[in-house]
Amino acid sequence: MKCDRCRRSEPVYFREYEGRSLCKRCFLQTIEKRAREEIRRYGGISGKKVLVAVSGGKDSNAALYILWKIAKRSRAELQAISIDEGIKGYRKKSLTKAEELCESLGIEHQVISFKEEIGVTMDQISELGSPCTYCGVLRRKLLNEYALKGGFDFVATGHNLDDEAQSILMNLMRGNIKRLLREENPKNGLVPRIKPLRLVPEEEVVMYSEFRGIPYYQGECPYVEMAFRKRIRDFLREMKKESPGVLFNLVRSWEKVRNLKSKPDIKLNKCEICGSPTSREICKACELMDIISLEFT
Amino acid sequence: MKCDRCRRSEPVYFREYEGRSLCKRCFLQTIEKRAREEIRRYGGISGKKVLVAVSGGKDSNAALYILWKIAKRSRAELQAISIDEGIKGYRKKSLTKAEELCESLGIEHQVISFKEEIGVTMDQISELGSPCTYCGVLRRKLLNEYALKGGFDFVATGHNLDDEAQSILMNLMRGNIKRLLREENPKNGLVPRIKPLRLVPEEEVVMYSEFRGIPYYQGECPYVEMAFRKRIRDFLREMKKESPGVLFNLVRSWEKVRNLKSKPDIKLNKCEICGSPTSREICKACELMDIISLEFT
Repeated sequence: MKCDRCRRSEPVYFREYEGRSLCKRCFLQTIEKRAREEIRRYGGISGKKVLVAVSGGKDSNAALYILWKIAKRSRAELQAISIDEGIKGYRKKSLTKAEELCESLGIEHQVISFKEEIGVTMDQISELGSPCTYCGVLRRKLLNEYALKGGFDFVATGHNLDDEAQSILMNLMRGNIKRLLREENPKNGLVPRIKPLRLVPEEEVVMYSEFRGIPYYQGECPYVEMAFRKRIRDFLREMKKESPGVLFNLVRSWEKVRNLKSKPDIKLNKCEICGSPTSREICKACELMDIISLEFT
Repeated sequence: MKCDRCRRSEPVYFREYEGRSLCKRCFLQTIEKRAREEIRRYGGISGKKVLVAVSGGKDSNAALYILWKIAKRSRAELQAISIDEGIKGYRKKSLTKAEELCESLGIEHQVISFKEEIGVTMDQISELGSPCTYCGVLRRKLLNEYALKGGFDFVATGHNLDDEAQSILMNLMRGNIKRLLREENPKNGLVPRIKPLRLVPEEEVVMYSEFRGIPYYQGECPYVEMAFRKRIRDFLREMKKESPGVLFNLVRSWEKVRNLKSKPDIKLNKCEICGSPTSREICKACELMDIISLEFT
């Protein structure tokens, strides 16, 4: 039996959603091709400054590696950034893996911490409940501010196909349509995101990392709150076992919706406190900071 | 304990997604109010001709009953139609319940059959596999043609909130975005649909029918193919147990998408064979009829 793509080598993987078997080399090539196509949707990164958010986990490390391969040929400037939220027994270990990869690729790696930037750690904030809300909102804000200050053209993240499908479904089921339709662009103060792995299923990110020997940390955040997301994740996993194209359909369906001829006016205001772009009067990050400061100062 | 709406009567039902208990009278009123609001979205049915598709099942019988109540006060002209697909041991029994309700409400009830209209029954067609595809496509076509010929302004169906949420999710997960964005309007040959129960959860349709003493047939079609829809239905049922607003969110999210300022150009062609509106060259119904005629003539 031969690889259905090159017709020469021994296949190592049957890609069910395409109905074909691939050898290792072709598998790697198709993943990297998908990442390049994804980046091309944003006009490419040639000559651009890209800030890559790495946690040391499988997705962001794979994304950094692929971007490094692409950047080598396109004179893009890469810098890696990690955010140390201050989670004992978890974050330091994953940052080691981010550092290890950056060093081996010769990429500058910056670490900024909740402790230094906002004065408290997630271990402290977690006492308030809903840790993921605080963490997500504050992390996004810090990332965006860092990218703006450094004049970066893009922020790259490791989101894979499963993450994207989950987010779409979660937001639809929460009625959070604004979030799903929001565009990042420098005019409204949000640095555009690129997600090289957006169309790569989770299990293929794992295979890619294994084949390429990319180091990554496997631990899970101790605060992970999964009730709602977990149900959606489990459901999508069940569905994709039977209809392997289901996640692609969901992500592409939503892409078509976003491309409806004229975009809706999702006007962004400036936060009255910090000036960040927000759909509210006071941005979510400032609202949360307010709660935090009441509690910890 | 008193009803949270009228503050007078004994509550019979706790409506979790609103966080309030309702007495029987208030429960019925809120369902009928929701149906009226739904109809108002289409400019109301006052003075209009409405064709109500009834199968004899709980949803379409409840929809017919509610429309009858609304029509009494608004000089709307109602007619009921049932389609006898030719399914032994099932359809005749359900049609009895449709007939029973129509008689008691004094509404004209027409029955048209696959056998007479297209020459074969579903019992025959089912031999070809995928019975739901054939049945759905052909039923919709017959309904629309009947409504066009009779000069009806609307076709009303019994779809409830659960059906709507399932359809949205199914179509998204199948990448069938055109279907979800299509508008029915007489210009493109599709008679507009109204769904009085669109925002009424399935369990409330059952309660409504019980309280109002509306007869209905409980059997299930013997051909029902549920693999994909069943998974989606089960998932949504699970989700709504934990977050009771989830179906509303999904349906309303999609409504917002549909209302994006300018509608995309989903141009409809005329089928080259029958002239019906279609997004293809030859409509799905004619394609299926082709397969059927090869097989049975």
